[in-house]
Amino acid sequence: MKIKKKQEIVKKWFINLQNIVCKNIEQLEKDFGSNEKFKINKWKFGEYRVIKGRVIEKGGVAFSNVVGKFPKKFSKKIPGSNNNRNFWSSGVSVILHPKNPKVPAIHFNTRFICTKKNWFGGGIDLTPCLKDEKEKNFFHEKLKKMCDLHNKEYYTKYKKWCDEYFFLPHRNEPRGIGGIFFDYKMNNWEKDFLFVKHAGYVFNEIIHEVISKKMFSKWSKKQKKIQAYKRGRYVEFNLLYDRGTKFGLNSGGNPNAILVSLPPSPKWK
Amino acid sequence: MKIKKKQEIVKKWFINLQNIVCKNIEQLEKDFGSNEKFKINKWKFGEYRVIKGRVIEKGGVAFSNVVGKFPKKFSKKIPGSNNNRNFWSSGVSVILHPKNPKVPAIHFNTRFICTKKNWFGGGIDLTPCLKDEKEKNFFHEKLKKMCDLHNKEYYTKYKKWCDEYFFLPHRNEPRGIGGIFFDYKMNNWEKDFLFVKHAGYVFNEIIHEVISKKMFSKWSKKQKKIQAYKRGRYVEFNLLYDRGTKFGLNSGGNPNAILVSLPPSPKWK
Repeated sequence: MKIKKKQEIVKKWFINLQNIVCKNIEQLEKDFGSNEKFKINKWKFGEYRVIKGRVIEKGGVAFSNVVGKFPKKFSKKIPGSNNNRNFWSSGVSVILHPKNPKVPAIHFNTRFICTKKNWFGGGIDLTPCLKDEKEKNFFHEKLKKMCDLHNKEYYTKYKKWCDEYFFLPHRNEPRGIGGIFFDYKMNNWEKDFLFVKHAGYVFNEIIHEVISKKMFSKWSKKQKKIQAYKRGRYVEFNLLYDRGTKFGLNSGGNPNAILVSLPPSPKWK
Repeated sequence: MKIKKKQEIVKKWFINLQNIVCKNIEQLEKDFGSNEKFKINKWKFGEYRVIKGRVIEKGGVAFSNVVGKFPKKFSKKIPGSNNNRNFWSSGVSVILHPKNPKVPAIHFNTRFICTKKNWFGGGIDLTPCLKDEKEKNFFHEKLKKMCDLHNKEYYTKYKKWCDEYFFLPHRNEPRGIGGIFFDYKMNNWEKDFLFVKHAGYVFNEIIHEVISKKMFSKWSKKQKKIQAYKRGRYVEFNLLYDRGTKFGLNSGGNPNAILVSLPPSPKWK
């Protein structure tokens, strides 16, 4: 298949996925008794949607399709970009900061990037502010099952990658409880794309399961405060280390679309 | 003078300066009718003080004196650190986030760093969230007068440096209204130290003048909201670009002491 065709198919799926995720979340708001909907923000290279609801205090679901040329300094780190800095990229990012401190922040990303090479990347991870072993086990088992259907080595590999990636070295602290993270996936386009799509579906199941389970639970002021500090760490990670954020800000992305990931009311001591 | 002696003298001045700044701010709180005082946090390599007052919503005044060895990757960017990665550094950082959105955020830093070379660096800058031409003129004139007493070229040079430094490229937006910024000052230790001390005194005058002038002014909800978004930009700058922050986090600094610079209640859209 020609690369143009691949790009077209992938883009279509990403737009689909954005719609599915938004509907899923709006349904959860409805189940909660809220009427909050996503607000749509269109820009030159994409569309990001933001919800400020009663279940999701702040949530962003962004689709983008950026075509451009990497800055020289940045291109050195990108595969297939040494002699030709042009790129095509498309992706979906989801970040949900729930109001209830018992519900973890949920993050998902998937992307298809084309230089002289082309590859998929993505991941799913959770950032709880309070411990919940049952939830942790459910989440990792769910991811493992999904990975195993594609390749028995994926889960171990992508879990490790996730743990290494979502880590704050200056605090010697993980961001959350991990999940899966993968990048430079360019073995077999058809199979890789199947995996990426599967991850999208499973992510939607995880959203529903994790949020609906605890969205009605009561919380204390102290727990809400713990959440605010945990959100401070989230800001630290995203601005200090996150490669996706750097990629976006360095490749002509829309800063408001990229930074929609930042949590509401973060706090530092 | 031997370097040990220089370090001793500089360190003493920095500790003095920390005390002067804190007293100055506590006096402003008192003038306002508040009894808020700084809370002192000691750690292995320094002491940072935090105030959460009625004039200063959040303020940090940190002294540090870190002795260590730079990580390999980081040391390449540091003068005199190619063959020997050991360093001695000491500095004072002040960041004041006033409650009143009419009063600008105020930042000051000064440092003395020793590798095989040794130099001073520092700066003063303001980040208003609302325009105030009179204040801007007062501030820059004050800095110019101070600089001119040392060298007629300093103000232009350091103002430019400041404008270039405190800039958010991803937003094509300056952080604030600038001020002065200098680094790698290693011409003449005595003269450079005089300049650094003078900057410290003038900074105290600026704090008093800028804050006391408007701390009693009334503000609107809308202005407070503008301040919250401006504070979001402040977080972006400090975590994405600030070299001092990176230096600290890469050289064994205390993350809580370094990130005391982050504003209270920042917001993103």
